[in-house]
Amino acid sequence: MALIVHKYGGTSMGSTERIGLVAKRVAKWARAGHQMVVVPSAMSGETNRLLALAKELAPQRQTKAYARELDMLASTGEQASVALLAIALQAEGMDAVSYTGWQVPIKTDSSFTKARIESIDDARVRADLAAGRVVIITGFQGIDADGNITTLGRGGSDTSAVAVAAAMKADECLIYTDVDGVYTTDPRVVAEARRLNTISFEEMLEMASLGSKVLQTRSVEFAGKYKVPVRVLSSFTPWDIDLQEEAASGTLITIEENVNMEQAVVSGIAFNRDEAKISLLGVPDTPGIAFKILSSVSAANIDVDMIIQNLSKDGKTDFSFTVHRNDYARALDVLQEQVAPALGASEVIGDPKICKVSIVGIGMRSHAGVASKMFESLSAEGINIQMISTSEIKVSVVIDEKYMELAVRALHKAFDLDAEAA
Amino acid sequence: MALIVHKYGGTSMGSTERIGLVAKRVAKWARAGHQMVVVPSAMSGETNRLLALAKELAPQRQTKAYARELDMLASTGEQASVALLAIALQAEGMDAVSYTGWQVPIKTDSSFTKARIESIDDARVRADLAAGRVVIITGFQGIDADGNITTLGRGGSDTSAVAVAAAMKADECLIYTDVDGVYTTDPRVVAEARRLNTISFEEMLEMASLGSKVLQTRSVEFAGKYKVPVRVLSSFTPWDIDLQEEAASGTLITIEENVNMEQAVVSGIAFNRDEAKISLLGVPDTPGIAFKILSSVSAANIDVDMIIQNLSKDGKTDFSFTVHRNDYARALDVLQEQVAPALGASEVIGDPKICKVSIVGIGMRSHAGVASKMFESLSAEGINIQMISTSEIKVSVVIDEKYMELAVRALHKAFDLDAEAA
Repeated sequence: MALIVHKYGGTSMGSTERIGLVAKRVAKWARAGHQMVVVPSAMSGETNRLLALAKELAPQRQTKAYARELDMLASTGEQASVALLAIALQAEGMDAVSYTGWQVPIKTDSSFTKARIESIDDARVRADLAAGRVVIITGFQGIDADGNITTLGRGGSDTSAVAVAAAMKADECLIYTDVDGVYTTDPRVVAEARRLNTISFEEMLEMASLGSKVLQTRSVEFAGKYKVPVRVLSSFTPWDIDLQEEAASGTLITIEENVNMEQAVVSGIAFNRDEAKISLLGVPDTPGIAFKILSSVSAANIDVDMIIQNLSKDGKTDFSFTVHRNDYARALDVLQEQVAPALGASEVIGDPKICKVSIVGIGMRSHAGVASKMFESLSAEGINIQMISTSEIKVSVVIDEKYMELAVRALHKAFDLDAEAA
Repeated sequence: MALIVHKYGGTSMGSTERIGLVAKRVAKWARAGHQMVVVPSAMSGETNRLLALAKELAPQRQTKAYARELDMLASTGEQASVALLAIALQAEGMDAVSYTGWQVPIKTDSSFTKARIESIDDARVRADLAAGRVVIITGFQGIDADGNITTLGRGGSDTSAVAVAAAMKADECLIYTDVDGVYTTDPRVVAEARRLNTISFEEMLEMASLGSKVLQTRSVEFAGKYKVPVRVLSSFTPWDIDLQEEAASGTLITIEENVNMEQAVVSGIAFNRDEAKISLLGVPDTPGIAFKILSSVSAANIDVDMIIQNLSKDGKTDFSFTVHRNDYARALDVLQEQVAPALGASEVIGDPKICKVSIVGIGMRSHAGVASKMFESLSAEGINIQMISTSEIKVSVVIDEKYMELAVRALHKAFDLDAEAA
């Protein structure tokens, strides 16, 4: 008998019919002898519906002032979900009880709309499990030290599920999603993309942060930090599929680095076309220059991703970075009107039509020449590399947006990830 | 500066546009220097929408088993409402904060779906009021001793508002509704019906329990018990109506019996066509007979309203009572199959096509002949009286349903309630 956490997304909870199917699946696991904790999202569309009402009332977008009330509002979506799933399980003949974040309680800090979990008290949940009940807990939300309802931000239910699994030392946290696992790259771009049976936390973290949106990044960090085995699997298999088969499906995000039976140097290719590139040319190369540039950008509430500083020449240097494409125009303004005049930079140039392509793999640590193989492969396709950034298990390049699919396909093949090679 | 509680129904909260108007009205009161607590209902239709989802999942109607989860579900409607109203007030430039029942906390017993309020801790609310904030509290719900969310049942937001007003010793509790006050009778039946400026709690209680559904009965009981001045007034006046004029509009339910300036013996005519009559004929007139009959009905979960036992004749008596029309067929079954054979009654007869018409008035206490004037007036219209029941401030009769409008109009005129007589 194991303690298992299931997480279901909004699509799985999208109608009473689908909620009924989730109940049947959970009941199957419970009847097999497992202690079951379930973390469902709000019914699909519900969170957007609620936030749209708030926007109608406060169109000025001063969302900061309303943040506490937005959390009060948005948290109702998950609360309705857990109650409905409990009713569905009871109708299925399974004893079940639902709890909100504050009832567990899941304690968070007071950063409304993007709170962080601080602690989870599992006493009440354990008592219910011991009494043979399925326990259903709201995702996405918690309670702060002053008794206010907080939410964890978009995708927060993944984090809630992993956090609950960590607090309870669950044997496994199963995240049921629209996809049937983690792929070597997006199958819509590369037909030969393969589902990975296992992936390490570090690789998953890089994949997630690089735009492979299977799991919320924070939930992966949590899983890695607390060593919670997380499995991403499809919510579209029939509910009455054999339990052993279901338990082995999808992709297991492992806590052990060396279980990667596939021995590939590179596990996957991630890409992201949401970024834009900005360069400051002819900046005097003096100490603290990077700080001066980035602090102005940061003060404008703009997040920076890749940062590159070229070698200095004649006491001048070029400084480039990428920002989210939505922040591009604003970042350009800040640099042109404030930073460039203050630093005496000769020119500010930018390009929103770029994309970032990355190879990710634990295997890179012990294999030399991975980066050069990447550059060679792109060069063979005639693709010019504009920026390069590396970490221990990742190499990212910025290239012209129009070459994105070509680059991903070429790298997928070059690193033996195509299905034929498996 | 007064402490004022406003309660708004689901229609007033029915759209973001209407919520915006509620915010403007509340802001007007706050800017006039009053400390404001607001108790809004769920947006109209929302509670029904949520409960319909539950019914789809558990069509077997075993609502008892699901009661805890139904409260978890239904309470989200009011939670969304308070957050939206807080946002609307903030957008209006007014500092505001919303609380759920458990955050206040409003403590109740554990009777899910029909909980009763046990205590309210107003410390947190008082602190906010002192800091100049409008405080918005969810109606309809509370928290039990085990930390479960409870709801007070349909119309429970009226009770929440009055209970909050009682706990905080508010100067007045204003209930904004679809009607502009309490009338001498239903204006749809009697065109000459007049709005009462004041009505006593006891009269209001009789009117409410007799089917004049302006306020939930329990809220009136609460108001009487804790001596909270409650005003029923229209939510359809323009929000920017002069505050003094608004404050004097509607009907004040008074705690003092003698403020009735209108000096009428009868304050209003109530009626109810939701009942059905059942008679057990030729029952042996032995001690405990009423108990034996009514305990069987009660065991079938059927509420009985009026009860009449005729004088005994030859050791036999006739026993009649009324039930809700929805329970009529079931009650008839119980009597025919269980009670009549057991007691040796000669016959069970019933009539669902009846109605109950009542005259209500504090003035009856000191005026004799009120009942006989009622009977005379009905007799003059050729209306046969089937049952009679009296209390200190009320006389009710059961008559043929088809005479209902005629009876109400005749009594309204006979007791000088017509508008011309005012």
